Amino acid sequence: MKPTAPHLLGMAALLASAAFAGGTLDVSRFGAFPDDGKDDTLAVRAALTQAKKQGADKLAFPKGRYDFYPDKAFERYQFISNNDEGLKRIAFPIDGMKDFEVDGGGSDFLFHGYLSPFTVDNARGIVLRNFTVDYERPFHSEGKILAVTDAYADLEIPAEYPFAVENGLLKFHDGKPGKARTLYPVRAILEFDPVKRETAFQARDYGLGDDILAQDLGNRRVRLLRGKLKGTPGNIFVFGPSHRLVCGIAITDSRDVTVEDVTLYHCGGMGVIGQRSRDLFVRRVKVTPPPGKNRIVSLTADATHFVNCGGQVALEDCLFELQKDDATNVHGIYVRIVERLSSTVVDVKLVHPQQYGFDFIRAGQKLELVKGPALTTTAYPVVRRAERLNKEYTRLTFKEPLPDSAAVGDALAATGDYAALTIRGCTIRGNRARGILLNSRGPTVVEKNTFHTAGAAILFEGDARFWYEQAGVSDCVIRDNVFDNCNYGVWGRALIECGAGIEPAFRAASRYNKNIRITGNTIRAFHPALLDFYSVQGLTFTNNVIEKTAAYPQWKADAPRYVTADCDGVELQP
Amino acid sequence: MKPTAPHLLGMAALLASAAFAGGTLDVSRFGAFPDDGKDDTLAVRAALTQAKKQGADKLAFPKGRYDFYPDKAFERYQFISNNDEGLKRIAFPIDGMKDFEVDGGGSDFLFHGYLSPFTVDNARGIVLRNFTVDYERPFHSEGKILAVTDAYADLEIPAEYPFAVENGLLKFHDGKPGKARTLYPVRAILEFDPVKRETAFQARDYGLGDDILAQDLGNRRVRLLRGKLKGTPGNIFVFGPSHRLVCGIAITDSRDVTVEDVTLYHCGGMGVIGQRSRDLFVRRVKVTPPPGKNRIVSLTADATHFVNCGGQVALEDCLFELQKDDATNVHGIYVRIVERLSSTVVDVKLVHPQQYGFDFIRAGQKLELVKGPALTTTAYPVVRRAERLNKEYTRLTFKEPLPDSAAVGDALAATGDYAALTIRGCTIRGNRARGILLNSRGPTVVEKNTFHTAGAAILFEGDARFWYEQAGVSDCVIRDNVFDNCNYGVWGRALIECGAGIEPAFRAASRYNKNIRITGNTIRAFHPALLDFYSVQGLTFTNNVIEKTAAYPQWKADAPRYVTADCDGVELQP
Repeated sequence: MKPTAPHLLGMAALLASAAFAGGTLDVSRFGAFPDDGKDDTLAVRAALTQAKKQGADKLAFPKGRYDFYPDKAFERYQFISNNDEGLKRIAFPIDGMKDFEVDGGGSDFLFHGYLSPFTVDNARGIVLRNFTVDYERPFHSEGKILAVTDAYADLEIPAEYPFAVENGLLKFHDGKPGKARTLYPVRAILEFDPVKRETAFQARDYGLGDDILAQDLGNRRVRLLRGKLKGTPGNIFVFGPSHRLVCGIAITDSRDVTVEDVTLYHCGGMGVIGQRSRDLFVRRVKVTPPPGKNRIVSLTADATHFVNCGGQVALEDCLFELQKDDATNVHGIYVRIVERLSSTVVDVKLVHPQQYGFDFIRAGQKLELVKGPALTTTAYPVVRRAERLNKEYTRLTFKEPLPDSAAVGDALAATGDYAALTIRGCTIRGNRARGILLNSRGPTVVEKNTFHTAGAAILFEGDARFWYEQAGVSDCVIRDNVFDNCNYGVWGRALIECGAGIEPAFRAASRYNKNIRITGNTIRAFHPALLDFYSVQGLTFTNNVIEKTAAYPQWKADAPRYVTADCDGVELQP
Repeated sequence: MKPTAPHLLGMAALLASAAFAGGTLDVSRFGAFPDDGKDDTLAVRAALTQAKKQGADKLAFPKGRYDFYPDKAFERYQFISNNDEGLKRIAFPIDGMKDFEVDGGGSDFLFHGYLSPFTVDNARGIVLRNFTVDYERPFHSEGKILAVTDAYADLEIPAEYPFAVENGLLKFHDGKPGKARTLYPVRAILEFDPVKRETAFQARDYGLGDDILAQDLGNRRVRLLRGKLKGTPGNIFVFGPSHRLVCGIAITDSRDVTVEDVTLYHCGGMGVIGQRSRDLFVRRVKVTPPPGKNRIVSLTADATHFVNCGGQVALEDCLFELQKDDATNVHGIYVRIVERLSSTVVDVKLVHPQQYGFDFIRAGQKLELVKGPALTTTAYPVVRRAERLNKEYTRLTFKEPLPDSAAVGDALAATGDYAALTIRGCTIRGNRARGILLNSRGPTVVEKNTFHTAGAAILFEGDARFWYEQAGVSDCVIRDNVFDNCNYGVWGRALIECGAGIEPAFRAASRYNKNIRITGNTIRAFHPALLDFYSVQGLTFTNNVIEKTAAYPQWKADAPRYVTADCDGVELQP
């Protein structure tokens, strides 16, 4: 633990000295000074308390490096959808605040240990701007591939990723001695190409399980005793962390939140994650690995993600590269009916463990009741009472009886306030998996972006059987984008595709997605498959420029350019 | 997950039908019936909700077996001192209730998975009686010793303890397949003698670390690849669980709570743990392994434990046997000063991780300020403000300046409301470690008990450097007990001893314990050392009957019968 800044002479005294209404608070008044290496967490905490008290407009940071340690940080048990729950330490708890800005002044915020940078909770009119986020010890680890055989892989692991081989097991940690040591567990490997700065051609995830058998070869070289790996010497094996515990900026039950001119070099979860919020703006945000370090990967999950968000959601002029999952996904949540207690009472369950605790059903809300395998809606019941049993189960009482067909296994999701989504001027490249997942029923505009993604650049997904993510666009324009040789990885059949979890037998009757217009795009493609859709009402592909390239080897040369099964209103004229 | 009882037709309907004031609620009215194998958790939850609503006096169970599963149980993040924190599922949340009794009617309550039986929180006038508690799958595991060499030990593990050897590692689990499997991690071994029903002679704990190297020999036989073990074929190696996550009965911030005629066959933590509570009565409670199963151990930690409790604490006519730690310990908590911010403001830290979250300091409270190595009090500062920073740290502001000598490393504890402790008519035998730890400053009476303990039967402890447990008796009588061949294990130098953490250089000046009177006891002893004390003011040992036995081999034949260093007012006349 680093010593607290000596200037911090008790919060009470500080609060008294800082008492004036509105205005800007300078963090140095609370004992945080740039570049002194001291823990600035308590100073920020005191500053936020004071800002809330006096209704300050802004907290400003003189430019420099600030350090944040978890020891004395704010603490809260958090359920953040699509990430892992837990009792978190949070450096910037923006909690219950209104019309307030954090201006980093171009500073670098360096975090140490399991400390979440920002939480915006039950707030409105919040702006976070002008700073970078990085970690002393990343949550993932990396190793340069020296050799790969059928039986093992030899790696050289940079000093940035302390490790030990103990009891024949590889364990990543923070380099501290003895009991002070904190583990950084990992559970999967993915190969990256450090020259092209992207996932290696057709690289796939290798699960490692809980026990990573290994031998220490000395000089930071390790032999991974894991057969059937593929990897090219000189490339990087990235070890993905076992959990998504430390999001960058988590926005919960808030509205009108802007994140701009922020660079997220790293965090141990999603970069910007919004849930049950509305009017969220992400502008000129960069997700990219830090320069000058042995790091090919930026952050360890999706760059951004939005769950049950309404109003407007906008991503503008952003760079999302080399993160360990998609650039964004905007969707709702389905719960599963696990017991029908009467015609008006059911017990429902959040199915995916990373959705546990995601309470989104309120009295008075109109839900949609769907059959999971078909994703067809059978009723729109209105909730009279929602009683949370625990983080998994809720008991719902409806105003009117459910239809007789309502049964265990059916799913329920919220209706009504779907986000109007804009993704404009962004560059998405080199990351694991897909580009963007378009699953909002609000007007969706994707324009002037550049995609160079390993899997599908754009995916329409959603299901009520596996991930329980509500989707189904109703009005979606994809225009004036550049698609630059996507599909060099394994995560997709085509450049733009549908992956909704509708059982094949039900696809002919389903029109889960509607009104998708793809126009005016420039497509440079080595992979033949451009579109692969099913169950769409209204799909046009017009005025796009297609250039065939030889940027990568063909991995499925016979894939058809267009697949549009069980679709109506299809117009395809390149 | 077991199906919910079909009788449970929605809580709302039940609540309406059960609405009358006071009286006894029968759990069967809420859908819980004995011996049907169904999950009774939700029925009990509904019954408790209704009991609270109508101010019922009692919840009664028709005699039989009831099953409880964690799936739909009440959930709360709990910090329970000397156990492990976590988001717990709780079968009987007695929360904010008053003058209420749970009468099990002689029933057996069988718990499944990580489900805590009882929590009494912010309640008064609570009685829990007439039931047994056991688990389908214990939190510890056991194996019969087949052979022990310098390099390994071979064990036969009963079917009650499902396990796998995977990647060369022994893993205990619940026997469920695939992803449904829940692990039951362990981290230490202790040898028990199944004939004598106690820890084996001079057996000690062996740490295992996180990785238990092993080979599966087939037929439920396992070779533990752990050298330097000692063990006798036919004896039992007990694998202690890695955590104390599932206490039996946890009593927090409550008063006037009685637990009587209850048998705790098992739980994954302490049996009855009281914290920040007063007037607690434990009568005719048995802690013992269940009959007819392959289990030598009862529960996995202390049978009972009381932290910062006041008023009266009484243990009467109880049996505490074969649990994995002491029978009881009644103490306070010290926090450590980690930063002195001004003459009136300090940051303090709860040091032991199992004390995290134990908030016990309130505005207006008089604390004692002690020097850790000496356990001497330098001041009694009164708290003006206590501001919790997180589960580890609190910022304290005092009404008056602290003495100049107050420094980082000093410790603070509450003063004033020390429990008057009675331990009467209890039998304590066969368990790991000691009998009872007497660390309350209230009048303490220990009479008519029978001890057959592996370590010291009675220990006076406390320190402000290692465990941070406040102690120091002021008035303690130990009379008319039978001490039956204690000290056959490694946990103690003498039958009754002091282990307070006072650095030897400070012992001459310290009188941390006062007024200990040991009289009228019958002592059957093979071990020569009866008393080993230091830093006591007033110690008498009179009218005790001492019989020398040869019940066990001598392990320290030259130990002096009495050690009373740095004590005043000592009277020793057997």
